[in-house]
Amino acid sequence: MGYDHKKLLNYDLNIESLGEATIDSPLKFSDTKGDGVINFVSDEERVLAINSQNELKEWLNEGKEIPSFEKAGPRSKLYFTPGQTRSAVVTCGGLCPGLNSVIRALAYMNYYRYHNQFTYGVKYGYEGFIDSFGHGLINLTPETVEHIHKLGGTMLGSSRGPQDSGLIVDKLTQMNVSVLYTIGGDGTLRGAKDIADEIKRRNLKISVIGIPKTIDNDIMYTDKSFGFETAFSKACEAIDVAHVEAKGAYNGIGIVKVMGRSSGFVAANAATASNDVNFCLIPEVPFKLEGPGGFLEVLKNRLQRSHHAVILVAEGAGQNFFDDTNQAHDASGNKKLFDIGLFLKEEIKKYMAAHNVPTTVKYIDPSYIIRSTEPTPNDSLYCFQLAQHAVHAGMAGKTNLVIGRYNGEFVHLPMDLITSEHKRLDTESEMWLSVLETTGQPVKFGE
Amino acid sequence: MGYDHKKLLNYDLNIESLGEATIDSPLKFSDTKGDGVINFVSDEERVLAINSQNELKEWLNEGKEIPSFEKAGPRSKLYFTPGQTRSAVVTCGGLCPGLNSVIRALAYMNYYRYHNQFTYGVKYGYEGFIDSFGHGLINLTPETVEHIHKLGGTMLGSSRGPQDSGLIVDKLTQMNVSVLYTIGGDGTLRGAKDIADEIKRRNLKISVIGIPKTIDNDIMYTDKSFGFETAFSKACEAIDVAHVEAKGAYNGIGIVKVMGRSSGFVAANAATASNDVNFCLIPEVPFKLEGPGGFLEVLKNRLQRSHHAVILVAEGAGQNFFDDTNQAHDASGNKKLFDIGLFLKEEIKKYMAAHNVPTTVKYIDPSYIIRSTEPTPNDSLYCFQLAQHAVHAGMAGKTNLVIGRYNGEFVHLPMDLITSEHKRLDTESEMWLSVLETTGQPVKFGE
Amino acid sequence: MGYDHKKLLNYDLNIESLGEATIDSPLKFSDTKGDGVINFVSDEERVLAINSQNELKEWLNEGKEIPSFEKAGPRSKLYFTPGQTRSAVVTCGGLCPGLNSVIRALAYMNYYRYHNQFTYGVKYGYEGFIDSFGHGLINLTPETVEHIHKLGGTMLGSSRGPQDSGLIVDKLTQMNVSVLYTIGGDGTLRGAKDIADEIKRRNLKISVIGIPKTIDNDIMYTDKSFGFETAFSKACEAIDVAHVEAKGAYNGIGIVKVMGRSSGFVAANAATASNDVNFCLIPEVPFKLEGPGGFLEVLKNRLQRSHHAVILVAEGAGQNFFDDTNQAHDASGNKKLFDIGLFLKEEIKKYMAAHNVPTTVKYIDPSYIIRSTEPTPNDSLYCFQLAQHAVHAGMAGKTNLVIGRYNGEFVHLPMDLITSEHKRLDTESEMWLSVLETTGQPVKFGE
Amino acid sequence: MGYDHKKLLNYDLNIESLGEATIDSPLKFSDTKGDGVINFVSDEERVLAINSQNELKEWLNEGKEIPSFEKAGPRSKLYFTPGQTRSAVVTCGGLCPGLNSVIRALAYMNYYRYHNQFTYGVKYGYEGFIDSFGHGLINLTPETVEHIHKLGGTMLGSSRGPQDSGLIVDKLTQMNVSVLYTIGGDGTLRGAKDIADEIKRRNLKISVIGIPKTIDNDIMYTDKSFGFETAFSKACEAIDVAHVEAKGAYNGIGIVKVMGRSSGFVAANAATASNDVNFCLIPEVPFKLEGPGGFLEVLKNRLQRSHHAVILVAEGAGQNFFDDTNQAHDASGNKKLFDIGLFLKEEIKKYMAAHNVPTTVKYIDPSYIIRSTEPTPNDSLYCFQLAQHAVHAGMAGKTNLVIGRYNGEFVHLPMDLITSEHKRLDTESEMWLSVLETTGQPVKFGE
Repeated sequence: MGYDHKKLLNYDLNIESLGEATIDSPLKFSDTKGDGVINFVSDEERVLAINSQNELKEWLNEGKEIPSFEKAGPRSKLYFTPGQTRSAVVTCGGLCPGLNSVIRALAYMNYYRYHNQFTYGVKYGYEGFIDSFGHGLINLTPETVEHIHKLGGTMLGSSRGPQDSGLIVDKLTQMNVSVLYTIGGDGTLRGAKDIADEIKRRNLKISVIGIPKTIDNDIMYTDKSFGFETAFSKACEAIDVAHVEAKGAYNGIGIVKVMGRSSGFVAANAATASNDVNFCLIPEVPFKLEGPGGFLEVLKNRLQRSHHAVILVAEGAGQNFFDDTNQAHDASGNKKLFDIGLFLKEEIKKYMAAHNVPTTVKYIDPSYIIRSTEPTPNDSLYCFQLAQHAVHAGMAGKTNLVIGRYNGEFVHLPMDLITSEHKRLDTESEMWLSVLETTGQPVKFGE
Repeated sequence: MGYDHKKLLNYDLNIESLGEATIDSPLKFSDTKGDGVINFVSDEERVLAINSQNELKEWLNEGKEIPSFEKAGPRSKLYFTPGQTRSAVVTCGGLCPGLNSVIRALAYMNYYRYHNQFTYGVKYGYEGFIDSFGHGLINLTPETVEHIHKLGGTMLGSSRGPQDSGLIVDKLTQMNVSVLYTIGGDGTLRGAKDIADEIKRRNLKISVIGIPKTIDNDIMYTDKSFGFETAFSKACEAIDVAHVEAKGAYNGIGIVKVMGRSSGFVAANAATASNDVNFCLIPEVPFKLEGPGGFLEVLKNRLQRSHHAVILVAEGAGQNFFDDTNQAHDASGNKKLFDIGLFLKEEIKKYMAAHNVPTTVKYIDPSYIIRSTEPTPNDSLYCFQLAQHAVHAGMAGKTNLVIGRYNGEFVHLPMDLITSEHKRLDTESEMWLSVLETTGQPVKFGE
Repeated sequence: MGYDHKKLLNYDLNIESLGEATIDSPLKFSDTKGDGVINFVSDEERVLAINSQNELKEWLNEGKEIPSFEKAGPRSKLYFTPGQTRSAVVTCGGLCPGLNSVIRALAYMNYYRYHNQFTYGVKYGYEGFIDSFGHGLINLTPETVEHIHKLGGTMLGSSRGPQDSGLIVDKLTQMNVSVLYTIGGDGTLRGAKDIADEIKRRNLKISVIGIPKTIDNDIMYTDKSFGFETAFSKACEAIDVAHVEAKGAYNGIGIVKVMGRSSGFVAANAATASNDVNFCLIPEVPFKLEGPGGFLEVLKNRLQRSHHAVILVAEGAGQNFFDDTNQAHDASGNKKLFDIGLFLKEEIKKYMAAHNVPTTVKYIDPSYIIRSTEPTPNDSLYCFQLAQHAVHAGMAGKTNLVIGRYNGEFVHLPMDLITSEHKRLDTESEMWLSVLETTGQPVKFGE
Repeated sequence: MGYDHKKLLNYDLNIESLGEATIDSPLKFSDTKGDGVINFVSDEERVLAINSQNELKEWLNEGKEIPSFEKAGPRSKLYFTPGQTRSAVVTCGGLCPGLNSVIRALAYMNYYRYHNQFTYGVKYGYEGFIDSFGHGLINLTPETVEHIHKLGGTMLGSSRGPQDSGLIVDKLTQMNVSVLYTIGGDGTLRGAKDIADEIKRRNLKISVIGIPKTIDNDIMYTDKSFGFETAFSKACEAIDVAHVEAKGAYNGIGIVKVMGRSSGFVAANAATASNDVNFCLIPEVPFKLEGPGGFLEVLKNRLQRSHHAVILVAEGAGQNFFDDTNQAHDASGNKKLFDIGLFLKEEIKKYMAAHNVPTTVKYIDPSYIIRSTEPTPNDSLYCFQLAQHAVHAGMAGKTNLVIGRYNGEFVHLPMDLITSEHKRLDTESEMWLSVLETTGQPVKFGE
């Protein structure tokens, strides 16, 4: 996935723990490999960060230890007592497909596998820990969550922005909670780290486990984030519509805008999956509009050849075309983006009019339709697995980590490794190759 | 459906014909009712325009002839020779689910049932008849149209606005076309009437058959227009999303805008079908925003009671809130509507802020997603039947008519009856009753 | 729809009532037509049973009263006190799409519109009234039913077969129930009639309202039954699969079996909606397999011409090919049908082998997949309306009726009118015409 | 994924080639890593077969070369001349979602990226190479394949079983084909290997590239096969139906049978994705029916606790319960499996009757519905990438390989490595862990 593995040397990849795990797991698994029975995972099992033969040789030649991540999975020894461990679940930030599946799986894993009767659902994000909001708590019994995996959104509600971590830890203590599961983006996970730090400061025994949530798929060292597949799959429906509209008029153009603040994963995957996109514009690839080889000229040439075109643009693409003085921010602290889709529509209309190319431009912004839908089965499966590994980690007393998946294996990633930067689409990766070959667009627009 | 049947007295409900139909139909149907074999339909079979016992008694008492419509269906005698009749198909105006299904059925009916080898597809609406556009023609063989019923839009492309009817008739003559099938909205059908008039003026023997297309379902004397069910069904997905978003935040509000320039059928049907709409605003029902009992106050009360709300608004609702001096028009001659959804969003935010009610408002405009999708099976079935009856009418030499469905029966409606006015949602109808009872909204907003 | 309206003369089409309705409705509707406000419906409003001009003239000439049905809708005067009326809901027989939507709408209408706090859900069909089964009751509050319209099946469970109507009335009395809503097929409705009779015998004031449920759409005098559209829509997916399989092999044949014990509505609608069926076999149209013009010969000819074929067969078709001595019955008393799909598959293979036509036959029986799915939006809307009218009828003290829809209007139909016979597909109807023209199959197979 | 990497030592993992690649690629990619421009891939780039830190250490300690696979991707030097290379595509064996997407992508890659005008589509599998069948060929131009990615199945048709490889190579020569793309299962790939061998024997310069197709996902050293995700996603719909049916009756049981001849991947993934399966039975895990802890007893206990159960069974599970003397085979040489679903249904009914547990058992066999559907977007994307890499490999003159994906990277796998054995679900893997934890079923049924 084009990671610079050298960067990993700056981090301690070992996972923090609240203390020695000494309690027998109630799960009836095996400690012996090869007996055909599912195994407990030991802390010594680690997944290599590199998978290229050349890179391996290089590192070995330089005598460096190959970086690796602790494997996730059920431990034979627990830190918390099964049947008596209370936990809390909170969902923060924007909605994302699969939130309810994660909530449900956390509740089921606690209830049925570890026999814990109390998994508290915290309402409306971190606000729910602050009494003055008056949001209340619910206990996530199997009955309460029975059908939620069929519904989009989060049954707990959400909110943006941080809350006082002192008050949150006060509340956790008061609730007698041993494990906190936070589901959210990088802001949320930084908040989770603050909570974990405050817990450490007070010398409390509360585990904090993050499940990273980003519809943009921009979590470092994680193959994919939950909800991402659903998002780009749903985006394909909007692309179909754009394609139909484009072909429905002479020289018709359909523009679709999708998620992707600083990375174009949704756009790239949707473009390749749909097969019907002619231009895919993402934040990682700056482009020129005007001039020879510029986007508008290339588009005009295509229109004159094929009489229709479909453009897919990530919301974060082309922000350089706007003046960002005085740019507003949302409650999560993100810059409010300018509407690149609308901008393109207007620029295209002007350009084509100036060049006497009759055209009809349709702009489609599916927005919430992509994110508030129920997860695809493959995403649903992934949500279950993330939650499953989160509960195993929590019961084992591990803390200050998030559940990741790296080269196909579930791993424990230190919280600060994840929040350090956003993953961006490598323009030298297989994924971008696929985009170039499905669209046929030039490697660069301009000069 | 709340029609004022008195208006029908102003129209000649008899259907024009090019001359006597004398050629035997190749279809192997029966002229005898009750023999269990499908029947040819005679011109004497007519469907009553009224179905209320009281109204019937009234009309009988007043000694008036009950108005009725000619029944559609296969005729035993044809005007045009099967196997040798060329026809043309044109699709005009905005896209609508089912266009391709109608095109395909017209081609199949001509090819397989009446053995006609040439059904020309005219490209990009009425423009396709005008040589200077250079759009070209295609012959709609079974192979050409085999898969199109699985695709949204129209394989022929479309365009807005009229073209010179003299040139169109020139082209029809040149193409040796005997039947023209026009699929479009009221502008298109007025154009079709002009063509039919020009044909009559030249004393040509070309039949003009309209298949009315309006995603708004606002065709008079027609139970439903094709594509309408698909449109409101698809709108339900956007409503689901709005519901999820509304519940995902404290005092969350989801606003969805749907089609409906002058009539609220899409909104009303979608609101009832989804079960999750709290307020449905349509052009037929003016509403007050401010003041006691105004929309904003009622909304605030709901928020404080239930902490979320879903609003569904037809695009043509509340246009009185805007200043329409200098309002633009599109190429079809329709006024460009102001964006009532965006307006509501801003008004709600202002009002709630002024009343210290924290809220999060999400606005969803599914736009083309609703109209460029493939038809539901029930719509697909309906498209087939409309096309089927169109071809039967065309081969029988009937002209200047559209295919309608009235109280469940397919009928021939004179072209000018249909284009005289738009159907609007009767606020004393069962449909509006359903909206009021599913939403619980007051009969009126304000005083 | 091809009814023999003479039969209606054998029935009293007036609706029974428990007594005079004297209590003001809490609904804020109007008694005045034309004021733009939704109206209460009076018992004098009736919908004509006939809509053909010729038939009207005939009846008028013969001096006969045109039969008509009482219009459904909200009454201004109620028999039962809003806010204090308890009701019960029971679902019986096989699952059908929309059951949960009907349950939810009954609960919501009672709770929100008539302010009734108690709508009891009876578990597992009529069994739920019999204490010895120990199934228990639940109160269908808005919270309990909030999400059920998104789920297939019935949240109450169901069972087949009757229970002692004396015990049921005992239980209703004990529960203090004033209105019983029974949702089920003709067996269930006959049971409902027995209950209504027992109530009358005991001179109790309990209303019994039926909502007919049949996935086969075989209810007399009812345009369509709920769940039917969903069923044939879902069947189209199986037909798509059969089409894909048929085209995937040389001389491939796909056979799909769908619901339809004694009537072919599901098959006929699905065949026309899908556009890809070549042969549609239904119970109403007997067919010959062997001999000149027999089904097998016609199929062989098609294979040799087109190299694939799709066959859609209703489960009740061709039962004459089996020996029904000792035929089993299910708990509802229905004959267990022989598997016509499997039979056709074997006969086709034998015949084609005998005629040296290589072929691959794939048999698809989607079975429960068609019936346990969630309703389409159009069905969901219809479910709401049926339930809405049921509650209006119940609160008005009407009894021994079912809610029907006739020529597009909701009406009250006497229970015994409905259970007298099954609706069958009229082979002289527009629907069968559509099947013949979409498939191109001969009017008859054999001679 | 639980591979025994030692086995790889038995294979030559280098990829065969027709000769030196000396022709410049027309693709405008870069040879320099880090310049932000997509890169050509060199034959030296290899993907490590192991990703466990412990295993790496072991191999290093033993001084063994870590096995690795050649990376797939565009080569800067080609063997065949772009613009003049003819290729052929053939699809064999059972249908699988995504076949059309692969065909379309092969055609597009050849036409648009490598400017090759002729990509022949071979009809009905290997039969299409044999003139006596008379199936004919088609040229897969962009127009021909434009819409096929929206359709299930294969536009080329398929057939089972091998054909004479001598005749096939004769035909390839006669067609002047340089690259043959074969899409099929292990039988097909063994056939492809025979063809490649025959080509070598004749010293011809024809590349043979396999794209493995198995809905069961049982290809060795390949993360997932195309169509597999679609299959288990579609299976989830049948599970939903089974769940609805199970809850619709007292002690209701729903049984669903899915693909999986010798491996339980479809069942395991669907069980975890759906969240509603209580028992998942696969070929890799033998189970006892009778006796203490046997399946039937565990099922009975669940019924008595929860009153419903959903069972998901792979078609190849429990074959030991049948007598396989005289077992038939299909044309591909696969044993015809006994119907384990039907068997379970009967055994359950007998057992529950014997134990006086009333129950209703519904058996759902979605069969072709799972495989003849269109691919999910994620599968569609994957199909594009497989085809993309296949064409790059073919143009580079590589041969006797299949395109695989290993730990997230596309690789070239020697044909004989793939056909050596089936991948089976490792019962010590994360996937099986997920099944055990989502179902709660015991690790073993019956000691």
